[in-house]
Amino acid sequence: MDPQRRRTLSRLLSRLDDLSPGEPLPSVEKGRPIGGAFRIGITGPLGAGKSTLINETARNYRKRDKSVGIIAVDPTSPFTGGALLGDRVRMHDLTLDEGIFIRSLATRGMSGGLTAAAIDAADLLDVFAFDRIIIETVGVGQAEVDIVGACDVTVVVFEPGSGDSIQAMKAGLMEIADLFVVNKKDMWGAERFVMDLESVIEMRGGNRKPDVLMTSANRGEGVVELVEWLERYFERSKQDKSLDRRREEQRIDRIRRAAQMILRRRLWQVVSPESLDKVVNSNMPVRNAAQQLIEQFFSGEADET
Amino acid sequence: MDPQRRRTLSRLLSRLDDLSPGEPLPSVEKGRPIGGAFRIGITGPLGAGKSTLINETARNYRKRDKSVGIIAVDPTSPFTGGALLGDRVRMHDLTLDEGIFIRSLATRGMSGGLTAAAIDAADLLDVFAFDRIIIETVGVGQAEVDIVGACDVTVVVFEPGSGDSIQAMKAGLMEIADLFVVNKKDMWGAERFVMDLESVIEMRGGNRKPDVLMTSANRGEGVVELVEWLERYFERSKQDKSLDRRREEQRIDRIRRAAQMILRRRLWQVVSPESLDKVVNSNMPVRNAAQQLIEQFFSGEADET
Repeated sequence: MDPQRRRTLSRLLSRLDDLSPGEPLPSVEKGRPIGGAFRIGITGPLGAGKSTLINETARNYRKRDKSVGIIAVDPTSPFTGGALLGDRVRMHDLTLDEGIFIRSLATRGMSGGLTAAAIDAADLLDVFAFDRIIIETVGVGQAEVDIVGACDVTVVVFEPGSGDSIQAMKAGLMEIADLFVVNKKDMWGAERFVMDLESVIEMRGGNRKPDVLMTSANRGEGVVELVEWLERYFERSKQDKSLDRRREEQRIDRIRRAAQMILRRRLWQVVSPESLDKVVNSNMPVRNAAQQLIEQFFSGEADET
Repeated sequence: MDPQRRRTLSRLLSRLDDLSPGEPLPSVEKGRPIGGAFRIGITGPLGAGKSTLINETARNYRKRDKSVGIIAVDPTSPFTGGALLGDRVRMHDLTLDEGIFIRSLATRGMSGGLTAAAIDAADLLDVFAFDRIIIETVGVGQAEVDIVGACDVTVVVFEPGSGDSIQAMKAGLMEIADLFVVNKKDMWGAERFVMDLESVIEMRGGNRKPDVLMTSANRGEGVVELVEWLERYFERSKQDKSLDRRREEQRIDRIRRAAQMILRRRLWQVVSPESLDKVVNSNMPVRNAAQQLIEQFFSGEADET
């Protein structure tokens, strides 16, 4: 991608923040229809080595002549400037590659809107014809889980040991993972950790059993296998139409959420802070107060039309 | 509370589940206005001994002639039938006490509605004139954090060791805690853990510095001090009006959420599944599709009036 077009993309991404939920994405000259890119969601706890792994994965894709867009929704990621110097230096030569585009999303008070913002950004990279889009989150909150669940494939990264696998189950990561990567495979107890993880997967049952891979991103080990796994997954899900089904479900979900967000925003545009104050300071029960605001909302809307 | 009135309360609590967000709470004969009870939110990770601590706290309140309502929003709580036999046996004599009422809330797919449901249940116990209401959650998801944050005081329970304090900060527990209880104080490393916790609190700064208490609920140690702390907190926050301010903020938040929930429900009542299908299967971008549904919603509403 030439520097000119790169600047256009950057500018459009910045404008996404100012769009209201009902506004369409900006139109793009020579844009590709959405859906051409393979979207890879990667999450996992702090310190599991996600960023190094993503770095190596992107490099491997470049060797295969695939362009890669990276969206980091992670305040601790080196992509967003939050990591150790060593990481940042290593990232540096990635950012010089014209086939790579990195964008970080700050998680600043976008309550509810973070998922939409991340997926909108991925859509824009898709329109700009990136072949592979990697979205990185730290798997803690629901929004972060939602984001990686909204990709074509969801990868959860652990390091061996620690109570991470149990935490992951609590946070609902087991439900959304297509692949578990145990990074830092040379750490003591890694084999045991993988066995434990596999037995947890086995015990959960269900027809969707995530695979488990071991890597050592620092040494570049297992990354080729990871990329091969991803590409096989992509091909298979295209062929058996599960990709289409997954994307359709995600589309329904996104449209529903977007509609709710438009409506919520409209509610607090129409209902004035004074009206809210009034019912707050009344002795009405909460539910009655809420109902009264809704009635005001509809009569306000009716006045406008 | 006599058995008759206890049955009435149980029945009303069950009916809460069937109320739509806009419907008022059922009216209660000889009910007390909401606001008379002191609401204590208790949360913390699995295995910290919360249930035993709550058990002992409730016993102590009974010695002070205070009636206690307990709402357990915790699938692992013995109150909801999820714990070890030993715990359940100990709970048993609590449930025979007429001054105690225990209710468990299943967390079954109440997405978004769990917080509202728990607070509604607390309101009802308040109307039924319980003096102290304890709400127990496991501090993992946002809903659980929201619930204990919606009480008059928020207590976070840890056991010494483990990365719990770090997890707590991530989950936003540091922001909402008024008191940290380090339970199992006889465990190795407890003193050290308290020191670490205190220095984390110190480093965070801000004008709201939670206190730290040590207990051993199993041995009944520190529980008297806990209850005394709670009662002092309650008295002080009544006197300096911070209780009023806190409750008003919570009321604003609840009314806003309830209004949004009413509106969301109405949206999907008015917009038919067929309309949703239609825009999903179009090649409209997500935001445009959502906007179109909203326009349909308003014209549907206009037709009705």
